[in-house]
Amino acid sequence: MSAAAPGGRALVVLAHPRTDSLTAQLAGRARSRLAADGFAVDVLDLHAEGFDPRMGPEDEPDWADAGKEYSAEVRAHMARVAAADVIVVVFPLWWFGLPAILKGWIDRVWNYGFAYGGRSRGTLTGKRMLWIPLVSYSEAEFTRAGWDRTVEHTLRVGISEFCGIKDTAVRFVYDSLRVGEAALDTVDEEVGSQRR
Amino acid sequence: MSAAAPGGRALVVLAHPRTDSLTAQLAGRARSRLAADGFAVDVLDLHAEGFDPRMGPEDEPDWADAGKEYSAEVRAHMARVAAADVIVVVFPLWWFGLPAILKGWIDRVWNYGFAYGGRSRGTLTGKRMLWIPLVSYSEAEFTRAGWDRTVEHTLRVGISEFCGIKDTAVRFVYDSLRVGEAALDTVDEEVGSQRR
Repeated sequence: MSAAAPGGRALVVLAHPRTDSLTAQLAGRARSRLAADGFAVDVLDLHAEGFDPRMGPEDEPDWADAGKEYSAEVRAHMARVAAADVIVVVFPLWWFGLPAILKGWIDRVWNYGFAYGGRSRGTLTGKRMLWIPLVSYSEAEFTRAGWDRTVEHTLRVGISEFCGIKDTAVRFVYDSLRVGEAALDTVDEEVGSQRR
Repeated sequence: MSAAAPGGRALVVLAHPRTDSLTAQLAGRARSRLAADGFAVDVLDLHAEGFDPRMGPEDEPDWADAGKEYSAEVRAHMARVAAADVIVVVFPLWWFGLPAILKGWIDRVWNYGFAYGGRSRGTLTGKRMLWIPLVSYSEAEFTRAGWDRTVEHTLRVGISEFCGIKDTAVRFVYDSLRVGEAALDTVDEEVGSQRR
Protein backbone atom coordinates (compact mmCIF):
# COMPACT_ATOMS: atom_id res chain seq x y z
CA MET A 1 0.00 0.00 0.00
CA SER A 2 2.81 2.44 0.63
CA ALA A 3 3.69 2.30 -3.07
CA ALA A 4 0.17 3.50 -3.81
CA ALA A 5 0.47 6.36 -1.35
CA PRO A 6 3.54 8.42 -2.26
CA GLY A 7 2.20 11.26 -0.14
CA GLY A 8 1.93 9.05 2.90
CA ARG A 9 -1.09 7.98 4.87
CA ALA A 10 -3.64 10.12 6.63
CA LEU A 11 -6.28 9.36 9.22
CA VAL A 12 -9.26 11.74 9.27
CA VAL A 13 -11.31 11.43 12.47
CA LEU A 14 -14.86 12.81 12.43
CA ALA A 15 -17.08 13.24 15.48
CA HIS A 16 -20.61 14.44 14.70
CA PRO A 17 -23.94 12.66 14.98
CA ARG A 18 -25.32 14.04 11.70
CA THR A 19 -23.95 13.32 8.24
CA ASP A 20 -25.43 16.61 6.97
CA SER A 21 -23.47 18.68 9.51
CA LEU A 22 -20.88 21.29 8.58
CA THR A 23 -18.43 19.18 10.60
CA ALA A 24 -19.03 16.19 8.32
CA GLN A 25 -18.73 18.43 5.28
CA LEU A 26 -15.36 19.74 6.48
CA ALA A 27 -14.11 16.24 7.23
CA GLY A 28 -15.11 15.24 3.70
CA ARG A 29 -13.19 18.20 2.35
CA ALA A 30 -10.13 17.22 4.39
CA ARG A 31 -10.37 13.73 2.92
CA SER A 32 -10.60 14.89 -0.69
CA ARG A 33 -7.85 17.44 -0.28
CA LEU A 34 -5.51 14.88 1.30
CA ALA A 35 -6.33 12.37 -1.44
CA ALA A 36 -5.62 15.02 -4.10
CA ASP A 37 -2.25 15.58 -2.44
CA GLY A 38 -1.39 11.90 -2.77
CA PHE A 39 -2.30 10.63 0.67
CA ALA A 40 -3.99 7.30 1.21
CA VAL A 41 -6.82 8.42 3.48
CA ASP A 42 -8.55 6.40 6.18
CA VAL A 43 -11.73 8.11 7.44
CA LEU A 44 -12.87 7.23 10.93
CA ASP A 45 -16.46 8.40 11.43
CA LEU A 46 -16.90 7.61 15.12
CA HIS A 47 -20.71 7.74 15.12
CA ALA A 48 -21.09 5.78 11.88
CA GLU A 49 -18.73 3.09 13.18
CA GLY A 50 -20.66 2.88 16.46
CA PHE A 51 -17.64 3.62 18.63
CA ASP A 52 -18.38 3.28 22.35
CA PRO A 53 -16.45 5.95 24.27
CA ARG A 54 -17.01 4.40 27.70
CA MET A 55 -13.85 3.12 29.34
CA GLY A 56 -14.17 -0.39 30.68
CA PRO A 57 -11.75 -2.29 32.94
CA GLU A 58 -10.42 -4.19 29.88
CA ASP A 59 -9.06 -0.95 28.41
CA GLU A 60 -8.16 0.85 31.61
CA PRO A 61 -4.41 1.50 31.76
CA ASP A 62 -2.56 -0.68 34.25
CA TRP A 63 0.48 1.23 35.50
CA ALA A 64 1.93 -2.03 36.80
CA ASP A 65 1.61 -3.77 33.43
CA ALA A 66 3.11 -1.85 30.51
CA GLY A 67 2.42 -4.81 28.26
CA LYS A 68 -1.29 -5.08 29.01
CA GLU A 69 -3.25 -6.35 26.02
CA TYR A 70 -6.26 -4.14 25.41
CA SER A 71 -9.55 -5.17 23.79
CA ALA A 72 -9.61 -6.23 20.14
CA GLU A 73 -11.65 -3.13 19.27
CA VAL A 74 -9.04 -0.84 20.81
CA ARG A 75 -6.16 -2.70 19.18
CA ALA A 76 -7.80 -2.26 15.78
CA HIS A 77 -8.05 1.47 16.40
CA MET A 78 -4.44 1.60 17.56
CA ALA A 79 -3.39 0.02 14.26
CA ARG A 80 -5.20 2.75 12.32
CA VAL A 81 -3.45 5.45 14.37
CA ALA A 82 -0.08 3.76 14.02
CA ALA A 83 -0.47 3.51 10.24
CA ALA A 84 -1.06 7.24 9.79
CA ASP A 85 1.60 9.81 9.01
CA VAL A 86 -0.90 12.63 9.46
CA ILE A 87 -3.88 12.66 11.82
CA VAL A 88 -6.63 15.23 11.21
CA VAL A 89 -9.43 15.50 13.77
CA VAL A 90 -12.60 17.43 12.87
CA PHE A 91 -15.24 18.07 15.51
CA PRO A 92 -17.57 20.62 17.10
CA LEU A 93 -16.13 22.15 20.27
CA TRP A 94 -18.64 21.35 23.00
CA TRP A 95 -18.13 22.88 26.43
CA PHE A 96 -14.70 24.04 25.29
CA GLY A 97 -13.64 20.43 24.80
CA LEU A 98 -14.05 17.29 22.77
CA PRO A 99 -17.48 15.71 22.24
CA ALA A 100 -17.76 12.64 24.45
CA ILE A 101 -17.47 10.15 21.60
CA LEU A 102 -14.13 11.71 20.60
CA LYS A 103 -12.92 12.10 24.18
CA GLY A 104 -13.54 8.40 24.70
CA TRP A 105 -11.60 7.53 21.57
CA ILE A 106 -8.63 9.31 23.17
CA ASP A 107 -9.34 7.79 26.61
CA ARG A 108 -9.50 4.23 25.27
CA VAL A 109 -7.23 4.17 22.21
CA TRP A 110 -4.46 6.68 23.03
CA ASN A 111 -3.51 4.45 25.87
CA TYR A 112 -0.56 3.66 28.11
CA GLY A 113 2.09 1.58 26.40
CA PHE A 114 0.81 2.58 22.96
CA ALA A 115 0.55 6.37 22.75
CA TYR A 116 2.73 7.17 25.74
CA GLY A 117 4.79 5.47 28.44
CA GLY A 118 5.78 1.87 28.84
CA ARG A 119 6.74 0.25 25.55
CA SER A 120 5.47 3.09 23.40
CA ARG A 121 8.64 5.05 22.83
CA GLY A 122 8.56 6.40 19.33
CA THR A 123 5.21 4.99 18.22
CA LEU A 124 3.67 8.40 17.58
CA THR A 125 6.83 10.52 17.33
CA GLY A 126 7.27 11.87 13.84
CA LYS A 127 3.57 11.92 13.05
CA ARG A 128 1.79 15.19 12.36
CA MET A 129 -1.52 16.16 13.88
CA LEU A 130 -4.10 18.79 13.01
CA TRP A 131 -7.05 19.52 15.29
CA ILE A 132 -9.95 21.35 13.59
CA PRO A 133 -12.56 22.39 16.19
CA LEU A 134 -15.70 24.16 14.97
CA VAL A 135 -16.58 27.00 17.30
CA SER A 136 -19.79 29.03 17.31
CA TYR A 137 -18.04 32.08 18.79
CA SER A 138 -16.35 34.78 16.77
CA GLU A 139 -12.57 34.75 17.01
CA ALA A 140 -12.67 38.03 18.97
CA GLU A 141 -15.10 36.71 21.59
CA PHE A 142 -13.27 33.41 21.91
CA THR A 143 -9.79 34.81 22.31
CA ARG A 144 -10.90 37.65 24.58
CA ALA A 145 -12.15 35.04 27.07
CA GLY A 146 -8.92 33.06 26.75
CA TRP A 147 -10.54 29.96 25.30
CA ASP A 148 -8.06 29.69 22.45
CA ARG A 149 -5.23 29.26 24.95
CA THR A 150 -7.14 26.87 27.22
CA VAL A 151 -8.26 24.61 24.37
CA GLU A 152 -4.88 24.67 22.67
CA HIS A 153 -3.16 23.81 25.95
CA THR A 154 -5.44 20.82 26.39
CA LEU A 155 -5.22 19.47 22.84
CA ARG A 156 -1.74 20.39 21.63
CA VAL A 157 0.21 20.12 24.86
CA GLY A 158 -2.00 17.77 26.87
CA ILE A 159 -2.61 15.19 24.15
CA SER A 160 -0.38 15.55 21.06
CA GLU A 161 2.86 16.67 22.66
CA PHE A 162 2.23 14.39 25.63
CA CYS A 163 2.49 11.57 23.08
CA GLY A 164 5.61 13.00 21.44
CA ILE A 165 3.86 14.56 18.45
CA LYS A 166 5.65 17.88 18.12
CA ASP A 167 4.32 18.87 14.70
CA THR A 168 0.82 19.74 15.87
CA ALA A 169 -1.59 22.59 15.28
CA VAL A 170 -5.05 23.57 16.47
CA ARG A 171 -6.97 25.53 13.82
CA PHE A 172 -10.31 26.84 14.95
CA VAL A 173 -13.16 27.30 12.49
CA TYR A 174 -14.97 30.27 14.06
CA ASP A 175 -18.56 31.48 13.58
CA SER A 176 -19.56 27.91 12.79
CA LEU A 177 -23.28 28.69 12.72
CA ARG A 178 -22.81 31.37 10.09
CA VAL A 179 -19.59 30.64 8.23
CA GLY A 180 -20.98 28.04 5.82
CA GLU A 181 -18.87 27.06 2.84
CA ALA A 182 -16.23 29.67 3.57
CA ALA A 183 -14.96 27.16 6.13
CA LEU A 184 -13.95 24.88 3.27
CA ASP A 185 -11.19 27.35 2.46
CA THR A 186 -9.82 27.05 5.99
CA VAL A 187 -9.71 23.29 5.64
CA ASP A 188 -8.06 23.53 2.22
CA GLU A 189 -5.42 25.85 3.56
CA GLU A 190 -4.64 23.92 6.74
CA VAL A 191 -4.88 20.44 5.32
CA GLY A 192 -3.02 21.50 2.21
CA SER A 193 -0.08 22.50 4.37
CA GLN A 194 0.30 18.86 5.40
CA ARG A 195 1.75 18.07 1.99
CA ARG A 196 5.49 17.43 2.07
CA MET B 1 -39.19 14.86 50.71
CA SER B 2 -37.95 18.31 51.58
CA ALA B 3 -39.25 17.86 55.12
CA ALA B 4 -36.93 14.87 55.42
CA ALA B 5 -33.98 16.85 54.07
CA PRO B 6 -33.52 19.93 56.21
CA GLY B 7 -30.02 20.31 54.80
CA GLY B 8 -31.28 20.35 51.25
CA ARG B 9 -30.68 17.93 48.44
CA ALA B 10 -27.39 16.83 46.95
CA LEU B 11 -26.53 15.04 43.74
CA VAL B 12 -23.24 13.10 43.78
CA VAL B 13 -22.06 12.16 40.30
CA LEU B 14 -19.49 9.37 39.98
CA ALA B 15 -17.60 8.46 36.82
CA HIS B 16 -15.37 5.42 37.15
CA PRO B 17 -15.67 1.95 35.61
CA ARG B 18 -14.61 0.10 38.77
CA THR B 19 -16.52 0.02 42.04
CA ASP B 20 -13.26 -0.71 43.92
CA SER B 21 -11.58 2.46 42.65
CA LEU B 22 -10.42 5.30 44.88
CA THR B 23 -12.81 7.51 42.90
CA ALA B 24 -15.77 5.35 43.95
CA GLN B 25 -14.52 5.34 47.52
CA LEU B 26 -14.35 9.14 47.56
CA ALA B 27 -17.81 9.45 46.04
CA GLY B 28 -19.09 7.13 48.77
CA ARG B 29 -17.45 9.34 51.36
CA ALA B 30 -19.04 12.43 49.83
CA ARG B 31 -22.41 10.70 50.04
CA SER B 32 -22.06 9.71 53.69
CA ARG B 33 -20.70 13.09 54.71
CA LEU B 34 -23.56 14.92 52.97
CA ALA B 35 -26.09 12.57 54.54
CA ALA B 36 -24.55 13.17 57.97
CA ASP B 37 -24.97 16.89 57.35
CA GLY B 38 -28.66 16.44 56.70
CA PHE B 39 -28.73 16.33 52.92
CA ALA B 40 -30.98 13.96 51.00
CA VAL B 41 -28.41 12.46 48.64
CA ASP B 42 -29.00 11.15 45.12
CA VAL B 43 -25.99 9.21 43.82
CA LEU B 44 -25.60 9.00 40.06
CA ASP B 45 -23.07 6.28 39.19
CA LEU B 46 -22.84 6.82 35.44
CA HIS B 47 -21.28 3.43 34.64
CA ALA B 48 -23.60 1.47 36.94
CA GLU B 49 -26.63 3.19 35.41
CA GLY B 50 -25.38 2.43 31.89
CA PHE B 51 -25.38 6.05 30.77
CA ASP B 52 -24.61 6.44 27.06
CA PRO B 53 -22.50 9.58 26.56
CA ARG B 54 -22.94 9.70 22.78
CA MET B 55 -24.93 12.67 21.53
CA GLY B 56 -27.67 11.74 19.11
CA PRO B 57 -29.80 14.06 16.96
CA GLU B 58 -32.68 13.74 19.48
CA ASP B 59 -30.60 15.48 22.16
CA GLU B 60 -28.60 17.83 19.96
CA PRO B 61 -29.40 21.45 20.85
CA ASP B 62 -31.52 23.23 18.27
CA TRP B 63 -30.69 26.93 18.35
CA ALA B 64 -33.87 27.66 16.45
CA ASP B 65 -36.05 25.79 18.95
CA ALA B 66 -35.53 26.81 22.58
CA GLY B 67 -38.43 24.58 23.59
CA LYS B 68 -37.11 21.40 22.00
CA GLU B 69 -38.17 18.32 23.93
CA TYR B 70 -35.18 16.09 24.54
CA SER B 71 -35.22 12.31 25.00
CA ALA B 72 -36.94 10.79 28.02
CA GLU B 73 -33.58 9.61 29.36
CA VAL B 74 -32.15 13.13 29.22
CA ARG B 75 -35.27 14.65 30.77
CA ALA B 76 -35.00 12.24 33.68
CA HIS B 77 -31.39 13.33 34.24
CA MET B 78 -32.40 16.99 33.99
CA ALA B 79 -34.94 16.42 36.76
CA ARG B 80 -32.22 15.01 39.03
CA VAL B 81 -29.99 18.02 38.37
CA ALA B 82 -32.87 20.45 38.88
CA ALA B 83 -33.76 18.82 42.21
CA ALA B 84 -30.27 19.28 43.68
CA ASP B 85 -29.14 22.21 45.79
CA VAL B 86 -25.57 20.95 45.70
CA ILE B 87 -23.90 19.01 42.89
CA VAL B 88 -20.68 17.13 43.66
CA VAL B 89 -18.82 15.49 40.77
CA VAL B 90 -16.09 12.93 41.53
CA PHE B 91 -13.94 11.58 38.70
CA PRO B 92 -10.42 10.75 37.54
CA LEU B 93 -8.90 13.51 35.40
CA TRP B 94 -8.08 11.86 32.07
CA TRP B 95 -6.17 13.87 29.48
CA PHE B 96 -6.65 16.93 31.65
CA GLY B 97 -10.40 16.66 31.20
CA LEU B 98 -13.52 14.70 32.01
CA PRO B 99 -13.77 10.97 31.27
CA ALA B 100 -15.95 10.49 28.19
CA ILE B 101 -18.92 9.12 30.11
CA LEU B 102 -18.99 12.27 32.24
CA LYS B 103 -18.31 14.61 29.32
CA GLY B 104 -21.29 13.09 27.55
CA TRP B 105 -23.49 13.59 30.59
CA ILE B 106 -22.66 17.30 30.32
CA ASP B 107 -23.02 17.29 26.51
CA ARG B 108 -26.45 15.66 26.58
CA VAL B 109 -28.03 16.72 29.89
CA TRP B 110 -26.64 20.23 30.51
CA ASN B 111 -28.37 21.29 27.40
CA TYR B 112 -29.71 24.41 25.71
CA GLY B 113 -32.96 25.63 27.22
CA PHE B 114 -32.32 23.72 30.44
CA ALA B 115 -28.86 24.55 31.76
CA TYR B 116 -28.30 27.70 29.72
CA GLY B 117 -30.01 29.90 27.15
CA GLY B 118 -33.56 29.81 25.86
CA ARG B 119 -36.09 29.14 28.60
CA SER B 120 -33.49 28.18 31.20
CA ARG B 121 -33.08 31.46 33.05
CA GLY B 122 -32.58 30.69 36.68
CA THR B 123 -32.83 26.90 36.54
CA LEU B 124 -29.33 26.34 37.86
CA THR B 125 -28.66 29.74 39.43
CA GLY B 126 -28.38 29.45 43.19
CA LYS B 127 -27.12 25.89 43.13
CA ARG B 128 -23.65 25.06 44.40
CA MET B 129 -21.19 22.85 42.59
CA LEU B 130 -18.03 21.04 43.66
CA TRP B 131 -15.78 19.33 41.14
CA ILE B 132 -13.39 16.74 42.66
CA PRO B 133 -10.91 15.51 40.01
CA LEU B 134 -8.40 12.82 41.02
CA VAL B 135 -4.99 13.63 39.55
CA SER B 136 -1.97 11.35 39.50
CA TYR B 137 0.45 14.30 39.46
CA SER B 138 1.79 16.00 42.54
CA GLU B 139 0.42 19.47 43.13
CA ALA B 140 3.83 20.98 42.32
CA GLU B 141 4.11 19.22 38.96
CA PHE B 142 0.54 19.98 38.02
CA THR B 143 0.58 23.66 38.85
CA ARG B 144 4.05 24.22 37.39
CA ALA B 145 2.70 23.10 34.01
CA GLY B 146 -0.36 25.31 34.40
CA TRP B 147 -2.86 22.47 34.40
CA ASP B 148 -4.68 23.73 37.49
CA ARG B 149 -5.57 26.94 35.66
CA THR B 150 -6.51 25.20 32.41
CA VAL B 151 -8.74 22.62 34.08
CA GLU B 152 -10.35 25.14 36.41
CA HIS B 153 -11.05 27.47 33.48
CA THR B 154 -12.80 24.65 31.63
CA LEU B 155 -14.86 23.33 34.55
CA ARG B 156 -15.60 26.34 36.71
CA VAL B 157 -15.89 29.05 34.06
CA GLY B 158 -16.73 26.97 30.99
CA ILE B 159 -19.42 24.81 32.56
CA SER B 160 -20.61 25.93 36.01
CA GLU B 161 -20.47 29.70 35.58
CA PHE B 162 -21.63 29.38 31.99
CA CYS B 163 -24.83 27.96 33.50
CA GLY B 164 -25.08 30.68 36.14
CA ILE B 165 -23.68 28.63 39.03
CA LYS B 166 -21.43 31.15 40.75
CA ASP B 167 -20.77 29.17 43.94
CA THR B 168 -18.41 26.65 42.38
CA ALA B 169 -15.06 25.15 43.29
CA VAL B 170 -12.62 22.72 41.74
CA ARG B 171 -10.72 20.74 44.40
CA PHE B 172 -8.02 18.47 43.04
CA VAL B 173 -7.06 15.28 44.84
CA TYR B 174 -3.38 15.04 43.94
CA ASP B 175 -1.03 12.01 43.96
CA SER B 176 -4.05 9.80 43.37
CA LEU B 177 -1.95 6.66 42.86
CA ARG B 178 -0.28 7.07 46.24
CA VAL B 179 -2.57 9.15 48.42
CA GLY B 180 -4.91 6.38 49.54
CA GLU B 181 -7.22 7.03 52.45
CA ALA B 182 -5.68 10.42 53.17
CA ALA B 183 -7.88 11.61 50.30
CA LEU B 184 -10.93 10.95 52.43
CA ASP B 185 -9.93 13.92 54.57
CA THR B 186 -9.95 16.17 51.51
CA VAL B 187 -13.46 15.03 50.68
CA ASP B 188 -14.62 15.50 54.27
CA GLU B 189 -13.21 18.99 54.33
CA GLU B 190 -14.56 20.13 50.97
CA VAL B 191 -17.92 18.42 51.12
CA GLY B 192 -18.34 19.43 54.73
CA SER B 193 -18.05 23.05 53.69
CA GLN B 194 -21.26 22.64 51.67
CA ARG B 195 -23.25 22.62 54.89
CA ARG B 196 -25.20 25.81 55.41
